[in-house]
Amino acid sequence: MRDYPLRYGKSLRPAIAVAACRAFGGPLEGVAATAATLELFHNAFLIHDDIEDQSYLRRDEETLNRKHGVAAAINVGDAMLAATMPPLLGNIGRIGLGRSLRILRIVERMARESAEGQMLELTWISQNAWDQRDRDYVRLVHKKTGWYSFIAPALAGAVIAGLSDAQAESFARAFVCLGVAFQIQDDVLNLAAERDGYGKDFWGDLWEGKHTLILMEALRRADDSERVRALGVLARPHPGVGGLAAARAKLDELRAQKKISKAAYEDLLRSAFGDGPAPKEYADIVFLRDLVERTGALDYARRVAVRHARRAQREIARRVAPLPDSEHKLFLLGLGDFAVDRAS
Amino acid sequence: MRDYPLRYGKSLRPAIAVAACRAFGGPLEGVAATAATLELFHNAFLIHDDIEDQSYLRRDEETLNRKHGVAAAINVGDAMLAATMPPLLGNIGRIGLGRSLRILRIVERMARESAEGQMLELTWISQNAWDQRDRDYVRLVHKKTGWYSFIAPALAGAVIAGLSDAQAESFARAFVCLGVAFQIQDDVLNLAAERDGYGKDFWGDLWEGKHTLILMEALRRADDSERVRALGVLARPHPGVGGLAAARAKLDELRAQKKISKAAYEDLLRSAFGDGPAPKEYADIVFLRDLVERTGALDYARRVAVRHARRAQREIARRVAPLPDSEHKLFLLGLGDFAVDRAS
Repeated sequence: MRDYPLRYGKSLRPAIAVAACRAFGGPLEGVAATAATLELFHNAFLIHDDIEDQSYLRRDEETLNRKHGVAAAINVGDAMLAATMPPLLGNIGRIGLGRSLRILRIVERMARESAEGQMLELTWISQNAWDQRDRDYVRLVHKKTGWYSFIAPALAGAVIAGLSDAQAESFARAFVCLGVAFQIQDDVLNLAAERDGYGKDFWGDLWEGKHTLILMEALRRADDSERVRALGVLARPHPGVGGLAAARAKLDELRAQKKISKAAYEDLLRSAFGDGPAPKEYADIVFLRDLVERTGALDYARRVAVRHARRAQREIARRVAPLPDSEHKLFLLGLGDFAVDRAS
Repeated sequence: MRDYPLRYGKSLRPAIAVAACRAFGGPLEGVAATAATLELFHNAFLIHDDIEDQSYLRRDEETLNRKHGVAAAINVGDAMLAATMPPLLGNIGRIGLGRSLRILRIVERMARESAEGQMLELTWISQNAWDQRDRDYVRLVHKKTGWYSFIAPALAGAVIAGLSDAQAESFARAFVCLGVAFQIQDDVLNLAAERDGYGKDFWGDLWEGKHTLILMEALRRADDSERVRALGVLARPHPGVGGLAAARAKLDELRAQKKISKAAYEDLLRSAFGDGPAPKEYADIVFLRDLVERTGALDYARRVAVRHARRAQREIARRVAPLPDSEHKLFLLGLGDFAVDRAS
């Protein structure tokens, strides 16, 4: 359970909760436990997400599922979700009953929105459906990332500082566009960051067939033959991180060296992967990456991210303008730039 | 999300919560939402447990991980855990604030105990450690099954009926032995039930290498050479439910038919399964099952289960004796027999 939380991370969610609370004059002691709880939720989501995406790397180390197996990793995520309850119930002694219950309701909504967003993304991937528009992507990201990373921390900080529900919701609405900008930059970094120091699966979104704004736009800009080929690649499954991927590579190698008959090769392939399509290969991923490059989809996504970041920055600025100057206010004012300028 | 809850199940946990509440004079309207929540928790645990155990069957149908893949199944479990929050927060309007918060604390403890029990079991399996004593098994089962299946439902029903924490805890202690009896019978059924109508993976505990009282006793009673062989089998991994297991079977078949060279066969095995031991095979499982049969370990486990069931029955009877007669009291009095007499 301590593994992911002790790896180097940005601690962005607790930072937003603390800054929101303190910018509105709330005390650190009131918000600290809730802020830490949001980081625990984030880590639990990461652990389960890494299994779902079959990822290798997280924060520059092997994912928990790679280190300890899928079974232990699922259970550690569940244990971490359970571990969020004591600090949330302990809030009663720190911030009073009313605000504690409001925080519980925010957390409940957050967990639901995240699961709904995740399910939407998995459904798009499994159906290999690529006719979504940008606003569908924005709705997905709002649920999958925005709610738990930005909206819930902003709401929690504001509520603990003493804002009414209506005031807190008005404040948190400024963070909706920030979540979109942040997620697009996440997707850009997955395809454009330096491989060293990135810390996650480089080009992992392409292996996964994830519906990023980048890939959606690249498919729209591709010519017909490229689009057909790309959709064919995206219809093929992730090769997996286990023995199946390694066995597949070895099988291809033995066949290339003619050390195994064509009939045996095909028999084994069918047994391992059924009658469905063969998994994606490295050359497929290079093709997709080239398509993204050639169509200028990365620049398109960067521009959309910057537009959302600027809008978030304006909206946050408008809401914190009446507050006394403080490092917390400055932090909130800098989030828009941070979302799109960050390199990790 | 609706899949598992709509399959035929015993609804044991909500039944205990309702009976406990009503036997003490509490109203159905007060306990119904909490009882339903306990069933949701149970289903969320089953979904994640089926992934962790690589199970094929649940309630006579394919497990969710088989039907929709591991990724969707993890997320459905998470969504179900999130779905437990609204009814628990909605309790405030039904049973008042004080009792609602006490239920939340029971649920928090329950989620933690379950995750701890699950981790203990996974650790025993991954270490292939078999020197536990019966009291270690009882402690494991108390956490893994007893808390969420019996103790939490009894506590919740009693608290909602108006008992103090101390009274509710005294009542719920009677259910500790019931949990042990129930789990041992679960393990007995896995090895001794009729295959048809069992609804779960028949002999699945042996494939998984699960630390049941049965297998622990069989290993104690085995002679040295049998024990060495059994520990060797148990050190070998689950063959998995995916393409790897099917590919392995096909590979063995091709090798037996000499359609593939010994060198290619071994190359492929090593690629798929590393340098670790080969996965368990059906003959291994038959050997373990025979060992259980020959050593009389099933009868031993049945006797231990009956002892715990009788003790639970006595303890429950003592606690409900002062209550007015009702079908709810009768239900609670019958749980001991039910735990060990049930066929599914």
